[in-house]
Amino acid sequence: MPSQSTSGIPIIRLTGLHSEPRLDMLAAEEPLELRMSSGIAGKKRTRAIAVTMRTPGQDNELAAGFLFTEGIIQHAGDIQAIDPVEGKQGNTLCVALRDGLEPDIKKAERNFYTTSSCGVCGKTSIAAVRIVCEAGIDTQPIKVAATTLYALPDKLRAQQEVFSVTGGLHACALFTTDGSLVAMREDVGRHNALDKLIGYCMLHGQLPANQYVLLLSGRASFELVQKAAMAGIRIIAAVGAPSSLAAELAEELGITLVGFLRGERCNIYSGAERIVV
Amino acid sequence: MPSQSTSGIPIIRLTGLHSEPRLDMLAAEEPLELRMSSGIAGKKRTRAIAVTMRTPGQDNELAAGFLFTEGIIQHAGDIQAIDPVEGKQGNTLCVALRDGLEPDIKKAERNFYTTSSCGVCGKTSIAAVRIVCEAGIDTQPIKVAATTLYALPDKLRAQQEVFSVTGGLHACALFTTDGSLVAMREDVGRHNALDKLIGYCMLHGQLPANQYVLLLSGRASFELVQKAAMAGIRIIAAVGAPSSLAAELAEELGITLVGFLRGERCNIYSGAERIVV
Repeated sequence: MPSQSTSGIPIIRLTGLHSEPRLDMLAAEEPLELRMSSGIAGKKRTRAIAVTMRTPGQDNELAAGFLFTEGIIQHAGDIQAIDPVEGKQGNTLCVALRDGLEPDIKKAERNFYTTSSCGVCGKTSIAAVRIVCEAGIDTQPIKVAATTLYALPDKLRAQQEVFSVTGGLHACALFTTDGSLVAMREDVGRHNALDKLIGYCMLHGQLPANQYVLLLSGRASFELVQKAAMAGIRIIAAVGAPSSLAAELAEELGITLVGFLRGERCNIYSGAERIVV
Repeated sequence: MPSQSTSGIPIIRLTGLHSEPRLDMLAAEEPLELRMSSGIAGKKRTRAIAVTMRTPGQDNELAAGFLFTEGIIQHAGDIQAIDPVEGKQGNTLCVALRDGLEPDIKKAERNFYTTSSCGVCGKTSIAAVRIVCEAGIDTQPIKVAATTLYALPDKLRAQQEVFSVTGGLHACALFTTDGSLVAMREDVGRHNALDKLIGYCMLHGQLPANQYVLLLSGRASFELVQKAAMAGIRIIAAVGAPSSLAAELAEELGITLVGFLRGERCNIYSGAERIVV
């Protein structure tokens, strides 16, 4: 277990009216500041682009995945280097982009929520994602058996080392359609866990991840479906409930969205044709 | 049940290898853009300050609570009016501040994560919150019986109308020390649920909320403890796990933090003197 992901603390455990001192393990949470250096060689400028509260570990993946799922970069080749900033206790990373690349951060920031034409609403949020996400991702169709899906949550829990000690982390994982684990990531923030997972894919040449099934340990929000869509993922299964906008976005993008995946049960919200019963 | 908080959608329910079409209710999720109008009368300027994905409902409370817990405003009197922006489908709110008030948004944005002196780390995040939170909040000490705490999760669930239909919402609630419900709020985002609850307190003259117990339906993160601290809350109980930084912040601020509150059990991470066994 990566020790930087957990932190020990003395607590008092109450059981009924009996109290006893104990040592408890907590999921580590620390801020991470992401900086980006961009421009033409010799004239690079660096700016802070985000601060997120995350569980330390796999920070390079988090940085790469965040820039990618937020639409700031498009390929691993857009990244020249990812380095910790000195004297910042490992909590500040700078991503140097390839020479000449100058993304429009302001545009990316508001990409997924608003378009200038109509303002802020679910429909425009969905439209904005649709514009950004690549078309033609379905060149290799994918299907998964319901019985394979049913087995995934137990496989995820078996991998969740930090959660099993702390009870405090969100997790997400990619599986092949025969149920083999590809990669799993945990974090106190569910969006961070997914950014790490997608960052892993990006840094290992596995994007688009359109041949894998994504499993989420909790609920499926708009933001998580949006990030998965950016990575080309076509099947998302969540142990918890989806939100209305998550289901609408999945439907619009032709993504299979499964919720309440527990035991031998689940709800299919969209793309049922990819689930083989 | 407020209908704008839920959304019906046709789904396929799989049970083993049996599938049947059904209508499912989902927790509604829509973007909300918050704008703020500030300056001297006649020379007011309006700017967008945040977009958050939230469950529609109690948006005025969300706006007020967000501005307060992020350290942008200090009192209900700082708000002159909260109005929907026309033509934005109810998803854009403008908060007009009292004449002459001009908060430093940039400073507020980074308030809780960094200080200029040392950079980004958990310690500086905690130090930044300590500076912002009012001192002397303990003028009226508060204690709660463990047996009262044990009963709170069931009381919260009984109130969670939207969750009970959708399974998709975070909730938080304030209780008196004898276990009576003061107010409960639900949202797809847990920070939004707490902002709505604190916004309710603010708009109803109930700040500081230092005589109430805060119950969280899920985990306790740094951000949630920070927001509670801003509202003067001295006892926080969570059904789930706290993060390391949440526990450290509670300890530093002298806040009682209880986690894993389930059945007749809980863990006390800090401030045990306020729990009467």
